[in-house]
Amino acid sequence: MAKQKKQPRPKAEPPKGFRDYFGSDVIERQHMLEKIAQVYRAYGFDPLETSAVETVEALGKFLPDVERPNAGVFGWQEEDDGKWLALRYDLTAPLARVAAQFRNDLPSPYRRYAMGPVWRNEKPGPGRFRQFYQCDADTVGAPSVAADAEICGMLADALEAVGIPRGDYLVRVNNRKVLNGVMEVAGVLDPADPDRFEDERGIVLRAIDKFDKFGEAGVRALMGEGRLDASGDFTKGAGLSDAQADCVMGFMTAKRESGAATVARLRELVGTSRTGAEGVDELEMIADLLLQQGYGPDRIEIDPAVVRGLGYYTGPVFEAELTFDILDEKGRKRQFGSVAGGGRYDDLVKRFTGQPVPATGVSIGVDRLLAALRAKGQVSPHHQGPVVITVMDRDRMGDYLAMAAELRAAGIRAEVYLGNPKNFGNQLKYADKRESPVAVIQGSDEAARGVVQIKDLALGAKLAQDASLEEWKSQPAQMEIARADLVAEVRNMMARNEGN
Amino acid sequence: MAKQKKQPRPKAEPPKGFRDYFGSDVIERQHMLEKIAQVYRAYGFDPLETSAVETVEALGKFLPDVERPNAGVFGWQEEDDGKWLALRYDLTAPLARVAAQFRNDLPSPYRRYAMGPVWRNEKPGPGRFRQFYQCDADTVGAPSVAADAEICGMLADALEAVGIPRGDYLVRVNNRKVLNGVMEVAGVLDPADPDRFEDERGIVLRAIDKFDKFGEAGVRALMGEGRLDASGDFTKGAGLSDAQADCVMGFMTAKRESGAATVARLRELVGTSRTGAEGVDELEMIADLLLQQGYGPDRIEIDPAVVRGLGYYTGPVFEAELTFDILDEKGRKRQFGSVAGGGRYDDLVKRFTGQPVPATGVSIGVDRLLAALRAKGQVSPHHQGPVVITVMDRDRMGDYLAMAAELRAAGIRAEVYLGNPKNFGNQLKYADKRESPVAVIQGSDEAARGVVQIKDLALGAKLAQDASLEEWKSQPAQMEIARADLVAEVRNMMARNEGN
Repeated sequence: MAKQKKQPRPKAEPPKGFRDYFGSDVIERQHMLEKIAQVYRAYGFDPLETSAVETVEALGKFLPDVERPNAGVFGWQEEDDGKWLALRYDLTAPLARVAAQFRNDLPSPYRRYAMGPVWRNEKPGPGRFRQFYQCDADTVGAPSVAADAEICGMLADALEAVGIPRGDYLVRVNNRKVLNGVMEVAGVLDPADPDRFEDERGIVLRAIDKFDKFGEAGVRALMGEGRLDASGDFTKGAGLSDAQADCVMGFMTAKRESGAATVARLRELVGTSRTGAEGVDELEMIADLLLQQGYGPDRIEIDPAVVRGLGYYTGPVFEAELTFDILDEKGRKRQFGSVAGGGRYDDLVKRFTGQPVPATGVSIGVDRLLAALRAKGQVSPHHQGPVVITVMDRDRMGDYLAMAAELRAAGIRAEVYLGNPKNFGNQLKYADKRESPVAVIQGSDEAARGVVQIKDLALGAKLAQDASLEEWKSQPAQMEIARADLVAEVRNMMARNEGN
Repeated sequence: MAKQKKQPRPKAEPPKGFRDYFGSDVIERQHMLEKIAQVYRAYGFDPLETSAVETVEALGKFLPDVERPNAGVFGWQEEDDGKWLALRYDLTAPLARVAAQFRNDLPSPYRRYAMGPVWRNEKPGPGRFRQFYQCDADTVGAPSVAADAEICGMLADALEAVGIPRGDYLVRVNNRKVLNGVMEVAGVLDPADPDRFEDERGIVLRAIDKFDKFGEAGVRALMGEGRLDASGDFTKGAGLSDAQADCVMGFMTAKRESGAATVARLRELVGTSRTGAEGVDELEMIADLLLQQGYGPDRIEIDPAVVRGLGYYTGPVFEAELTFDILDEKGRKRQFGSVAGGGRYDDLVKRFTGQPVPATGVSIGVDRLLAALRAKGQVSPHHQGPVVITVMDRDRMGDYLAMAAELRAAGIRAEVYLGNPKNFGNQLKYADKRESPVAVIQGSDEAARGVVQIKDLALGAKLAQDASLEEWKSQPAQMEIARADLVAEVRNMMARNEGN
């Protein structure tokens, strides 16, 4: 062990962009994830937990907005064989690796869900962290759009299960093939040489995905020569002509009043492109399958403006948006926005095996969804603090521990104060900080008489807020009870407050 | 997006020493952790989830058996400020950082639990992984040994809660101060200059901790000149004289029939050392407090052979051992061994703040405990596979999806087969692989007649194992039912098998 004393003191802080979750933060998230998992499981999805670390070659380079190799991830080199390892940046790349590695053992189709942290080596900012939770469900090995439709319906079910009421969310569906059809028409995709114009299409894709952020002018600039942002940074554009850009913008704004009208408009736009027509057919099928199961346009709609930034999607793409308004930091109303997204990625497993393996799935942004639930007051009820047994007499610790044990045996959270017991006020302050419902007090005189004092801290807090003197008098916040009745009386006191 | 096609195919495997957890592995672990969390919460502990990544300076260097700086962890350097970051190697170092960072906001004492993966950059081996789960509970800010006693009692409760019966485990308690007292007597600790002989004591500590592995001769060699292992590697020893080594070995074997007798023997061994006497007093107090609460020597005992390898412990140390035999890979009986350990570390928070902050806690080795439960047949019941709706007629996907939705609405896991439906045999093979209890079959003729076939796959599997021809005939594994009765009949079929 190194001699710590001689070193300067380390700073007590996490690395930039990382954070800690305390108490109810952890419990509320777990509660929400459990509800989502129940929906996923009901649909036949099984859990999978891959390791946080993957080889860089297995992860691939699919992060949006990342040009340099290995950028965007936290990576390091193994000492013995020089291999590059990295923390996973999503849960999809590891699934593709698992689907390839265990292709002979897994059921096919393989429905799996996964929940856990992912890491992005990005510049942190307000509300922008470098570790965050995702909660994914994917079906590997199902070529039919019924699998995509299932994911969309299940996503709607999951949102309702955690407490987002119908009408407050919308699952928007689109299809990359339709976009590719439009690209063909615009002359930036050549079906005979799919790699040609790939960089241009990448820029267009990312620009469209940022429509909300950049607006039409910004997106048009990115499709053309490029865009100068407020900070003076210039982003190179795709170099499309105005006519080409018009064509792509026409796609963005193809949404009509009804799904059928949107589909009809898209058919016009993709013209004679075979890929485009296939995409429109698939969109129609997904919408039909969902409608048959009661997922109407109040929950799921076709929206050509959805493209998703990731490069690996090959067919249907979808996004769940919360449609209610919230107030931002500056008190301005704004829509809550996207909390989940996904799509079909038929080539990810092929990277490993050489054989195409169809796959589709969705990823829920856990922290954002939880923030939405909090904004709606929809998180699980605040968890109860423990009953605190105060320490009046250091030598009778055994008696206090026995009281706590009795309460726990009766299903009541309880703990003995284990700080320095000298200052009794500190013990009660501690109990308040713990949001303790009841404090138990027994000095040596009470012990001799076989009684204890119990103090109703929840009532005390309530009275302190708004009670009149009358109420203070009529509701005694502290009472003496027989030691033998401890469990029963504490339970009564707690029940009294829950009823209030 | 890079052009993947032109690169060689990546290998579909995780990095060395990492693994994936599938289906029931994940569920069983979660189930066990939830039971442990319930016990921790009942004792007033609140959850804390720190980030997986810490600065190397905050983590400190407390891993046993690690001589080089930064060795033992997965670390990398930040691009902008050159700071070294690393994955946490345990849950205690991050807690110390949090306790220092939030010392003005957290209740004091602060009882917290944490569960999650930790990472060690070690040589992987059979059953030895570089990512594994820990499940910790710690009390920060409680100087009294009542906090240590509480942790020991709670550990016993947690083991029983997950299904280790009383008598099959033992929490062994010791105290570093007693060992330090013995070191004083042996002349390898000078109270006036505590840093002197620090390296020697480190070697002795690690040697004692490996007593089970190296045996008495090995430990003696490490205390003296050094030890040559079977592979020819030489580990330098602490250079103690025979008399000094005798003194330390006397401590190792100080355990007597009763706790009181062990305490008496330890009092002799620590002689006039004040630290040693303090340690013996603390051991006695812990044992007394626990005994008062009914934790007798069948569950918790004083054992001087427990030292724990980590350098940062300053007082009581403890270890939970499973005492039943299991068969190893070669069919030999052996004791299951340690599944949890911890102790008091009063200086970890001080590293950050300069002020001493007492702390004590325990860490449960989640994978080992789960392995123990599996060996005892004590894991949660196998989770049920979904009902599989087979696809006889591709155009009637909507009908099949509706059946699955009805079953799910009734609380029954259900899914539609989404692979290529052409080969019906494949669909049934798939259902078997999913451990599906029931398959639902409806061709167009059945649809026209308003009926479906349901096939009892659980019964089929059972009959296939051991049934006579008579039984095959008397227990029809497939039946035709009215479409309207689908949910009720599937439920009956599943209940019939659960009853068997």
